[in-house]
Amino acid sequence: MARKNAFYAQSGGVTAVINASACGVIETAREHRKQIGKVYAGRNGIIGALREELIDTSKESKSAIHGLLTTPAGAFGSCRHKLKSLTENRAEYERLIEVFKAHNIGYFFYNGGGDSADTCLKVSQLSESMGYPIQAIHVPKTIDNDLPLTDNCPGFGSVAKYIAISTREAALDVASMCETSTKVFILEVMGRHAGWIAAAAGLAAEQDGDAPHIILFPEIAFNRDKFLARVKRTVKKHGYCVIVASEGAQYKDGTFLADSGVVDAFGHKQLGGLAPSLAQMIKSELGYKYHWAVADYLQRSARHIASQTDLDQAYALGKAAVEFAVAGKNAVMPAIVRGKGKRYSWSIGEAPLAEVANREKMMPRSFITRDGFGITEAARTYLAPLISGEAYPGYRNGLPVYTRLKLVPVEKKLRSTFKV
Amino acid sequence: MARKNAFYAQSGGVTAVINASACGVIETAREHRKQIGKVYAGRNGIIGALREELIDTSKESKSAIHGLLTTPAGAFGSCRHKLKSLTENRAEYERLIEVFKAHNIGYFFYNGGGDSADTCLKVSQLSESMGYPIQAIHVPKTIDNDLPLTDNCPGFGSVAKYIAISTREAALDVASMCETSTKVFILEVMGRHAGWIAAAAGLAAEQDGDAPHIILFPEIAFNRDKFLARVKRTVKKHGYCVIVASEGAQYKDGTFLADSGVVDAFGHKQLGGLAPSLAQMIKSELGYKYHWAVADYLQRSARHIASQTDLDQAYALGKAAVEFAVAGKNAVMPAIVRGKGKRYSWSIGEAPLAEVANREKMMPRSFITRDGFGITEAARTYLAPLISGEAYPGYRNGLPVYTRLKLVPVEKKLRSTFKV
Repeated sequence: MARKNAFYAQSGGVTAVINASACGVIETAREHRKQIGKVYAGRNGIIGALREELIDTSKESKSAIHGLLTTPAGAFGSCRHKLKSLTENRAEYERLIEVFKAHNIGYFFYNGGGDSADTCLKVSQLSESMGYPIQAIHVPKTIDNDLPLTDNCPGFGSVAKYIAISTREAALDVASMCETSTKVFILEVMGRHAGWIAAAAGLAAEQDGDAPHIILFPEIAFNRDKFLARVKRTVKKHGYCVIVASEGAQYKDGTFLADSGVVDAFGHKQLGGLAPSLAQMIKSELGYKYHWAVADYLQRSARHIASQTDLDQAYALGKAAVEFAVAGKNAVMPAIVRGKGKRYSWSIGEAPLAEVANREKMMPRSFITRDGFGITEAARTYLAPLISGEAYPGYRNGLPVYTRLKLVPVEKKLRSTFKV
Repeated sequence: MARKNAFYAQSGGVTAVINASACGVIETAREHRKQIGKVYAGRNGIIGALREELIDTSKESKSAIHGLLTTPAGAFGSCRHKLKSLTENRAEYERLIEVFKAHNIGYFFYNGGGDSADTCLKVSQLSESMGYPIQAIHVPKTIDNDLPLTDNCPGFGSVAKYIAISTREAALDVASMCETSTKVFILEVMGRHAGWIAAAAGLAAEQDGDAPHIILFPEIAFNRDKFLARVKRTVKKHGYCVIVASEGAQYKDGTFLADSGVVDAFGHKQLGGLAPSLAQMIKSELGYKYHWAVADYLQRSARHIASQTDLDQAYALGKAAVEFAVAGKNAVMPAIVRGKGKRYSWSIGEAPLAEVANREKMMPRSFITRDGFGITEAARTYLAPLISGEAYPGYRNGLPVYTRLKLVPVEKKLRSTFKV
């Protein structure tokens, strides 16, 4: 087989360790020069391929590529662009393959969540039928931790660690102040469809009575009275109450709490968010002084306190993706397999994309306590190893040193352009 | 002089390093057993003295006290309780002195901001006039960095570091996503009266064009049109715009932006906060997709990434306070003095409380760029050393290990109680 180039793209919301997967892909490809020529990265993800905006990673120094290990977010840019189904927009897939053909690309590494696994599969299938077969390998990534057939998803462990630490720290603050000031603290965390991130906050508690006292999961229908009663009971017992709320917390009918009637002077809805809504509910019903925080992007970009386990796995999956490609595999995803022993261990397995695409892994009900406000031992056992180890970046002048790539563009070969 | 006990209390909003000052006070007092008996801490700050709720720190092990160095928030509890003026509530001061007398307390170490410096001074003066002289030493602490006669205030450097790091990290995230998704990110930070914390975010930028692109200071009257024009220009030029806004940002007439007309379904004002208000303003006027974060307590409790400089200074000030007391000083505050050399250095100086109490140090106008949206080189020179060094805590199971004290109460000696 003639040597082919590789294409790598980052997809969807970025994470603290997605660049570690990029590092794994690029460093490993450089070790297989007989089979893999250059690694081209898509500028801003898959739309970089559609627009023929490719970045030549061979122009980056060894140390710059290695620096991706300690650099959060997407070094090549990512995008939220879901390719439609083949019947709806076959032209997009054909364009992709046209671009890949023009640049002699025979390997497609797509680093993302469920949607990108689906795209990956389709590229593999269509390229075959178009007579220009491309080996498409999906590299898993999502802070939502909702991909099937992998024990967990890179990006999640670091968010989980950040949220658990922040919960423990802020709780100490509230505990210090509650006698005369703030009695209720609410931390809003990401996770619109599943409560994995909110659950991780539960790791902050070590002893009975420790914060967080209440976790609101999207999986458990919100019951206003039960919630307020629990807040009141907690304040009476401990003097304060720390609440961690998933942004996806919802009423029984599926209405998000964050949507509940907040309007600004112009009549716009949902100005606030979940945390201020809950704070207001508590203030008006129970009268407690509150504070609230919304971590938003801070939680998924917090490379300064990334989980070493998460980082190692992100790198290993990028590396495995290239090894799979070199071994001739196609339409697969390297996955994390948890060892069976009591002591945590993991290895890399292989999942067929046909079984990954468009399937969400929900959090088991057995991870949530019966009352719906906390996590069980089963959840702790699953979550704890994922936040293990501190992968500190280097610092200069008191700030983390993050890699800046040169991002040298590859010369375009096609005359046609493509509107995305 | 017969050996006297000491009283130590934490006051006002807590910080990532106020316990390091407590550690400095207690460890140093233990080295001066000839002059200082036991160190009693106020449970929940000064109200612990008023209620005669004292904690016997001699019951804590050496390692527990040393663990305070790496534990955020107020280990003995703090409070928001400003003693009124002598004429308004002389009874409170008399009660304090009564309690101190009952427990043979001759040293008063008060760890707080401007208000507590004032209280400290009054205790010194009144105790003298009541014939039971107490040496009152103020230990500076405030994330607001607004105390006079000290180069900076313990607690501030760690918040500054957290905000600068978070800004740099979140900015990388937005930069990755801006082509197809979020174009504007707003981080709301603390600092109702002065822009010190917001200014620190400016350290995140190293090169022209780096985030943050806009900082909103309380010192600069908010001009809606000018702000929106700058946001638009930044997005056109860089593809995205990162804004760091002080919670104290205000219009020319003194109205806080956070107050600007947000009402919920019940007609309650100020549900949201500044960040969502700004986000909404940008969305409705410019149409950009946004994200926002409110760090709130996360920023001042973030011991996991505390500044080593800040930690060292917090400890040194606690230590100096005891040394001042042992040397017979009274009504003073140890202060940070910046060395004159080009290379940053600091030492401990001494400030008379009469000149500290009730005076705020504002941020110089020369620290803010002429356009009002950024920081100058003078600000960088001042701020940069304060975030220098990473004082990591120890970790267990992926989470920081924070000290839990036994908090053994001192037996009450007074029959009277005092309502606070």
